[in-house]
Amino acid sequence: MSAGAGRRPAEPNKGHPSGNTTGDTSAGQGTSGAGSPGRRHMKWWGWGDPGQAFDHTDKPGLRAFLLDRLGVDIAASPAPPPDPASLLVDSPRLPPSLLTALQAAVGPDRVQTGDAERLVHASGKSLRDLIEMRSGTPGRLPDVIVYPETEQHVVDVLQLALHANAVLIPFGGGSSISGSLRVPADETRPAICVDLADMNRVTAIDGHSRLATIQAGALGPDLEEQLARHGWTLGHFPDSFLHSTLGGWIATRSSGMQSDSYGDIADIVQGVRVVTPSGILHTRPVPASSAGPSVTEMVLGSEGRLGITTESTVRIRRRAPHRRVLAYLFPNWPRGLAAIADARASQANPIFKRLADAEETAFSFALGRAEHGTAQGTSRAVDFLLRRILRRDPAQQCLAFVGFEGTLGEMRRNRRVFSRIARAYGGLPLGSRPGALYDQKKFDTPYLRDFLLDRGVLADVCETAAPWSRLAGLHEEVFATVHRELAGMGLRGSVMCHLSHTYHSGACLYFTFALVPAGDAAPIALYDRLKAAIQQAFIDGGATLSHHHAVGTEHARWLPDDVSPAGAHLIGALFSSADPGRNLNPNKIV
Amino acid sequence: MSAGAGRRPAEPNKGHPSGNTTGDTSAGQGTSGAGSPGRRHMKWWGWGDPGQAFDHTDKPGLRAFLLDRLGVDIAASPAPPPDPASLLVDSPRLPPSLLTALQAAVGPDRVQTGDAERLVHASGKSLRDLIEMRSGTPGRLPDVIVYPETEQHVVDVLQLALHANAVLIPFGGGSSISGSLRVPADETRPAICVDLADMNRVTAIDGHSRLATIQAGALGPDLEEQLARHGWTLGHFPDSFLHSTLGGWIATRSSGMQSDSYGDIADIVQGVRVVTPSGILHTRPVPASSAGPSVTEMVLGSEGRLGITTESTVRIRRRAPHRRVLAYLFPNWPRGLAAIADARASQANPIFKRLADAEETAFSFALGRAEHGTAQGTSRAVDFLLRRILRRDPAQQCLAFVGFEGTLGEMRRNRRVFSRIARAYGGLPLGSRPGALYDQKKFDTPYLRDFLLDRGVLADVCETAAPWSRLAGLHEEVFATVHRELAGMGLRGSVMCHLSHTYHSGACLYFTFALVPAGDAAPIALYDRLKAAIQQAFIDGGATLSHHHAVGTEHARWLPDDVSPAGAHLIGALFSSADPGRNLNPNKIV
Repeated sequence: MSAGAGRRPAEPNKGHPSGNTTGDTSAGQGTSGAGSPGRRHMKWWGWGDPGQAFDHTDKPGLRAFLLDRLGVDIAASPAPPPDPASLLVDSPRLPPSLLTALQAAVGPDRVQTGDAERLVHASGKSLRDLIEMRSGTPGRLPDVIVYPETEQHVVDVLQLALHANAVLIPFGGGSSISGSLRVPADETRPAICVDLADMNRVTAIDGHSRLATIQAGALGPDLEEQLARHGWTLGHFPDSFLHSTLGGWIATRSSGMQSDSYGDIADIVQGVRVVTPSGILHTRPVPASSAGPSVTEMVLGSEGRLGITTESTVRIRRRAPHRRVLAYLFPNWPRGLAAIADARASQANPIFKRLADAEETAFSFALGRAEHGTAQGTSRAVDFLLRRILRRDPAQQCLAFVGFEGTLGEMRRNRRVFSRIARAYGGLPLGSRPGALYDQKKFDTPYLRDFLLDRGVLADVCETAAPWSRLAGLHEEVFATVHRELAGMGLRGSVMCHLSHTYHSGACLYFTFALVPAGDAAPIALYDRLKAAIQQAFIDGGATLSHHHAVGTEHARWLPDDVSPAGAHLIGALFSSADPGRNLNPNKIV
Repeated sequence: MSAGAGRRPAEPNKGHPSGNTTGDTSAGQGTSGAGSPGRRHMKWWGWGDPGQAFDHTDKPGLRAFLLDRLGVDIAASPAPPPDPASLLVDSPRLPPSLLTALQAAVGPDRVQTGDAERLVHASGKSLRDLIEMRSGTPGRLPDVIVYPETEQHVVDVLQLALHANAVLIPFGGGSSISGSLRVPADETRPAICVDLADMNRVTAIDGHSRLATIQAGALGPDLEEQLARHGWTLGHFPDSFLHSTLGGWIATRSSGMQSDSYGDIADIVQGVRVVTPSGILHTRPVPASSAGPSVTEMVLGSEGRLGITTESTVRIRRRAPHRRVLAYLFPNWPRGLAAIADARASQANPIFKRLADAEETAFSFALGRAEHGTAQGTSRAVDFLLRRILRRDPAQQCLAFVGFEGTLGEMRRNRRVFSRIARAYGGLPLGSRPGALYDQKKFDTPYLRDFLLDRGVLADVCETAAPWSRLAGLHEEVFATVHRELAGMGLRGSVMCHLSHTYHSGACLYFTFALVPAGDAAPIALYDRLKAAIQQAFIDGGATLSHHHAVGTEHARWLPDDVSPAGAHLIGALFSSADPGRNLNPNKIV
């Protein structure tokens, strides 16, 4: 075992001699751990299941749309898939004594040092991560991956890490897009990645209190399936649902598609258990308390800097007997915004409300599938109706999806309340067919980013939250910012936005932007300039640095602007006191 | 100005020569500051307005009830009111240079050192506070009271306090019952009480976002009146509403009677401004954020240990056009509990649900007023109905109040949903008359404690929150604990309970207990034994140390049990890093 930091070509097919059970998996096709059904890893160079990719061939409108917006022809050949043999990786910097101690603590099968394992645990899925992975220089990798199966395993690993002055990075589904999973580039201490994949069980259900206790490593589908067996649901469905875990949601203060009704993870979590240097931190699953500042809230959003969350007691609900997603077309963005704000203040109780701006609406129509003649037909019929009958400008239309759940009676009543509001703002009802399509493909969007990256387009997202009174101005300002920056760089690009996650006093705006690099500048530098300008527009517009993607390293520089320097000081002091040696996921947040 | 700590008789009518504008107010009748209409202080020896007291003469059933439960005849003469001349107070320990600097910073009228001012700021209104105040030895008083009018005043006072190594205690309405306002008995440094009474304005309303920015010193009625002028309400009505402030609610993680609908203060608060040693901490009033652990949540419940909150941006709502409180009588406690839990899981949307257990129901009927012939008549009619028609045991009945708000249509629908649930559990509808009476007298209960104390009865409250599945067992265990402790002390006493503040997964139980001291033991020791036993039962029963009365000094010893030692360590570390010199309200919480 080398302690040096020299780079060498990756050996994704060769693991550490002792205990690497996954060394026979090709890194080029992603690595799935053989030890446990929970150990499913995403592609090391992109989003999602190794066998799955975005398919444009059944979406005839997309080529024209992207040619128009970006000047890129997606029918041209994409870049070849990245070659794992071209990767240069560090040799593990792991003292043999630490490796031996880890193996003794959790069992040799649960300690992995092969390149394949190290690669899939080296980062999350930010655009920066993807570019670096594809570039052949994936950066500082973790030196060892440990798969604890019990809380005691986690306690032992943490104690060993502190004793050896190693760095400890918890890993859930690996979907972070804020840099939260990265070993700092200049970190010279051993880096231990703690993958919670084998702690993925629902361990208790208290039906009377509508509470479930769930291990932190449970992926979204795993925990929903276990809850569904007893008729329950957590109702937490972030875009990353298929590839993210309860522990990850807690670490990042996640929000789900249905959080309007089910609450954000901060509302859902009632109690936590966290292995910390001061012992096991556990908070009671009481519904409310005035026992000082909320310790549970200190854990929410702490990205592993206080310790490793092993389980949480969360609110659950009976699965609704019925569900329906309705689509509406509003004449423009301001009218759509006003309708959604009114719906939030009403007793319409939708489980979600999602409003695309005009550009994202056009994109949605461009994504319509050929085989869904209905969708295309609907689109053409709507176009005719808009132009000829309603005399509306199709280019201004904003598509909204509104979800309802419950008994038939509750749904009927709630839909009636919402319909009245939609009508008042010129919302054209499109029925439930577009919503059913949306429901089917709602987790597929991240694959599109890889598809575009294969074709030389950098696409990414920035999202925020702000009071209702600021949303229209913020939307305008971000659009102006993107167009100004693109013009300044002399590049083609695009931006679109949807509103989701509404609250009493405001909502989340979710921007998707794309640019096509050109010239001598490194693509990542162009991306950085555009992304930073958007984040700065959030801060200047009274919004937050992120509604649900967390801080990580990507957004850390805006933290003092967002929560004030004194607030950032408090967060930093909290981490320092819990972890004076900076062993716990250092460099993240502050 | 003496720097000594010797005790001397109070001079409530004599203030510090410079700038004491309230020295002419008799401490024996409470002190109301003359400088500002906001400076209304409660009695120094008891609850509420100096001119107001509990009146038993119009409640013919109360005497028999208390005679039966406690063996105390309230018709006998009460103890004479406490004599301010008998008080022994410390001389202020205030370096002349600090006094001069404070006067220069905020103006001489805003700096008070008279005994009357010091007495009303010496404590909150815990039973311990009242006993000590009435005993003639009120303990360590603050040395000076400062009334800032601006945030800059607060900044200046905090800087002067740090420079002089003085202690700073923020003061809102003075209603704390957890010891949060006390200067530690052994504190040798100068103690500055910062009364926010003159910072009581609603400074901004953002109607579109349904947000208001309000200064921390605003008392409940003050801020509701200012909001009502524009058609808004905060909807936060704790029992202490008339005598507590927004800043105090934030400091203690307060909950209001209507929090089922309006949320607890932790839900209502969107952003805060706090003067801290590291500068002004301010968080943006964004509806949600993943910018690290929530800084706003660190402030909520921090009881002045991080700094002094000067203002907050809070959620507001349009005042509802209609309101109605309905009463139901459930056949027993378990059936009532089940009905309330079902209502919480339904879409009945009541603004509050309050369920008295059998003993508190009996007490409620005993409080019926003579002039409300209707209430007495209702009670007799109900008794007849129960015994003869429904064959129910009147001694088991549990009275519930359920509040509804909204348009007539919304109220009708919601009441229909709730009525179906109530019927399923045998809830007998009593109409809206008892609820209207409840609404009128809901803020009067604290006066009863003084009335009983005048008659030698120690009465107090303990409240908690727990998951639904634990509530019935917890109720039983607390009753068993009280009866066991009373038997062990050989004393008469009583306990009763109501449920309020419901949540998805649990609710608050609010216990009222009384005991009649006898024998040689100091009354406070008997009280301590009973109160500690109840708190321990909470902890042993999986509940929290307090749902909304905060930690202060009264509950601090149970904090490590409640949030785990590692959690208490985090809270302590947060305070230490923000305030290394322990200048900010030391000794509270941890």
